[in-house]
Amino acid sequence: MQKPSLPKGTRDFGPEQMGKRLFIFDTIRQTFRRFGFQPLETPAMENLSVLMGKYGDEGDQLLFKVLNSGDFLDKVTEADIAAGAKKLTTKISEKGLRYDLTVPFARYVVMNRHALALPFKRYQMQPVWRADRPQKGRYREFYQCDADVVGTDSLLCEAEIVMMVHEVFRNLGIENFTLKINNRKILAGIAEAIGAPGQEGPLAVAIDKLDKIGREKVLDELRERGFSEESIDRLEPMFAPTGDSRETLTELKVWLADSALAQKGIAELEEVWQTAEALGLSDSRLELDVTLARGLSYYTGAIFEVKANNVSIGSISGGGRYDNLTGAFGQPGLSGVGISFGVDRIYDVMDELQLFPATAQQSTQVLIVCFDAEGRSVAYPLLSQLRTAGVAAEAYPDLAKVKKQLDYANAKQIPYVVLIGSEEIQTGKLTVKNMVTGEQQKLTTTEIAALF
Amino acid sequence: MQKPSLPKGTRDFGPEQMGKRLFIFDTIRQTFRRFGFQPLETPAMENLSVLMGKYGDEGDQLLFKVLNSGDFLDKVTEADIAAGAKKLTTKISEKGLRYDLTVPFARYVVMNRHALALPFKRYQMQPVWRADRPQKGRYREFYQCDADVVGTDSLLCEAEIVMMVHEVFRNLGIENFTLKINNRKILAGIAEAIGAPGQEGPLAVAIDKLDKIGREKVLDELRERGFSEESIDRLEPMFAPTGDSRETLTELKVWLADSALAQKGIAELEEVWQTAEALGLSDSRLELDVTLARGLSYYTGAIFEVKANNVSIGSISGGGRYDNLTGAFGQPGLSGVGISFGVDRIYDVMDELQLFPATAQQSTQVLIVCFDAEGRSVAYPLLSQLRTAGVAAEAYPDLAKVKKQLDYANAKQIPYVVLIGSEEIQTGKLTVKNMVTGEQQKLTTTEIAALF
Repeated sequence: MQKPSLPKGTRDFGPEQMGKRLFIFDTIRQTFRRFGFQPLETPAMENLSVLMGKYGDEGDQLLFKVLNSGDFLDKVTEADIAAGAKKLTTKISEKGLRYDLTVPFARYVVMNRHALALPFKRYQMQPVWRADRPQKGRYREFYQCDADVVGTDSLLCEAEIVMMVHEVFRNLGIENFTLKINNRKILAGIAEAIGAPGQEGPLAVAIDKLDKIGREKVLDELRERGFSEESIDRLEPMFAPTGDSRETLTELKVWLADSALAQKGIAELEEVWQTAEALGLSDSRLELDVTLARGLSYYTGAIFEVKANNVSIGSISGGGRYDNLTGAFGQPGLSGVGISFGVDRIYDVMDELQLFPATAQQSTQVLIVCFDAEGRSVAYPLLSQLRTAGVAAEAYPDLAKVKKQLDYANAKQIPYVVLIGSEEIQTGKLTVKNMVTGEQQKLTTTEIAALF
Repeated sequence: MQKPSLPKGTRDFGPEQMGKRLFIFDTIRQTFRRFGFQPLETPAMENLSVLMGKYGDEGDQLLFKVLNSGDFLDKVTEADIAAGAKKLTTKISEKGLRYDLTVPFARYVVMNRHALALPFKRYQMQPVWRADRPQKGRYREFYQCDADVVGTDSLLCEAEIVMMVHEVFRNLGIENFTLKINNRKILAGIAEAIGAPGQEGPLAVAIDKLDKIGREKVLDELRERGFSEESIDRLEPMFAPTGDSRETLTELKVWLADSALAQKGIAELEEVWQTAEALGLSDSRLELDVTLARGLSYYTGAIFEVKANNVSIGSISGGGRYDNLTGAFGQPGLSGVGISFGVDRIYDVMDELQLFPATAQQSTQVLIVCFDAEGRSVAYPLLSQLRTAGVAAEAYPDLAKVKKQLDYANAKQIPYVVLIGSEEIQTGKLTVKNMVTGEQQKLTTTEIAALF
């Protein structure tokens, strides 16, 4: 018999990891909810006609395709087979696994446009699948947690994203993070200012690699992409060390004085900042970074990225404003702004910095340990009493040595154990042991129920 | 451009449905947790070597198979193609979508057996996929919510399942349900008693259809399956109208006096009942039904099934005790008992009986409506104050007519609206409107924050 195994790049999440993951999910969900975002779930499988062509050629390759049910060869000709795997795929597979949450969201909006109250604020927390080569921190199945508002251009939405990011990370206990913000229009203005108008796309793609490859290599790439030496020289102010964001804004206003687009981007950024302050932003982690581009050509306004400081883990959240979410499905003109939280990386940050609260790893609070069958007459009513009070409690189901039962409590990280032997039954005072401190006390069942 | 569509048998869950679904999930999760069950999640894709052969030939057909990435034709020969779709599948597909939560659970237990503290109490709430023909109430993607204990034969586990079922449905507001219980050993004893020892398998399969096809057709099926007329005559007591469960038990003890196995089943059932009572079972919905078989040959002890009364929706929960969960993966001897809650059917029952609490359909509690831009100086601090207090609140992001903003509140079922016009700004008293009753009052921001 073959040993069972997991598909490459996929993972089981056992109780300990799930406790921590649920803590992250619950925290994000509660914050989304408090900001008026409503839940949406879409199916794991989408029609390939919905998915294909939305993520570029590489994305199309990375889609997991589902084989048609039944006799999928029924209508396949020899010519189809001779045409090779890529062409044959379209004949034997109609469905694929969700690659992100944005395309399914856009499809949902289009299919339900008449029933939706705009602006539509939705959040979605579901796994996505990518046939990427698995490596450290990169999986073939992973969760995305997205919140988007579509159907409004109001910059209040950007300000609320700034607030949500602060709340999510503070509620998670990640105090030391930086929320970088930029605006596509500023990048466009820079392209204008350096004499390469309309070239903010390639500019952004190169700049996006600044953290990874450094300034000199970014400049080399720009040269390769056809930027002139003069343009590259004029890019100098962009690499000025990031200091105070307000100073940077003032400098930008001067540098980009001739670009109406840049001035609009700067004004938007200032409004977002002021609105966030009006919404009570304090101890802000918000920082203007004109080099922030996120390489994604579909952002049209604000661009966000969050990094946890003092850990070598990439960005843990990102997003921005985009036009034309649903254009690919025949409904143009819907703009929106969104933010995505990377649960796996947030998990890694919190694990490395030991930020998970003890409660996230506890499930059962009390284990009742009977020395023998007699103890059950006391154990079962106590069990019922505790559970009625909302306490997660269990009794060890078998008659077993006390040591074995205590081992079980330790393995499950159960913080309290109630011991019931003959003395306890006679006196009505049960031994309650704190499994962390080792401290013991004798209490009645009523006193025990009141402990939690 | 093609209109986007959903794959057959799959569904989107919009905000209203999600609110209700999350209410069900949260209720079940909290109950599982209170009984000491720990969360597990496994990947959507499993290796086909793990899934195939576990669900019978029909099940193998109903698995969704995932096409290998890259050039899946690379090693495929002409002979492979000539062999037809079924054989070719094994050459071009290595992975499939999860068909239930039991096989992945068994795989997890085997792969982690050295790290697991037994007995292992796990719950799992995830979607599964089946390439079934879609029809009313039958989907190709649906959630299962399972709780299982493995590694113990203790009947405390069965009693706890009885308690959990009562708690889950009461917490959901489904008061009128019946929890039917039977024991495979009693069915085996009946087979013995009617002179067809060892034939409880086919007997169970036929009996399982009693609700659907009626007694006469069940008997016909038994004849077809080779049961003698004498055996069928002796089956008579089985169809006696279900009355009081205790009376039935007494009758069974007499009828099946000669079967040691049946007596063991009856004794087990009695112990489960008594233990549940010791655990505080009151106003019990538990009912012995000797015709309950659930057609599943792998149950070896208790069998459970839950039906909601006064609705024509099938069983909403079911389970039982099984031996040898992990035998197929080379680890024999692990017995367990489990229960599965059918979220989709529970949803249908609750929707039909209008049992969802209003809170399950509300997300945002307060919408702040500004008459003009000036109102924002009051709106934004109030928004922040409400959210800090944990109240889900939002401001309409655009400057729009009041009617449009109120329509938005109604569409999102937001129960309270705060109106801010010039009078409100001057006096500091804001108008709070209850959108359900239409009632209005003038309150300060502090008073508003205290409302919720």
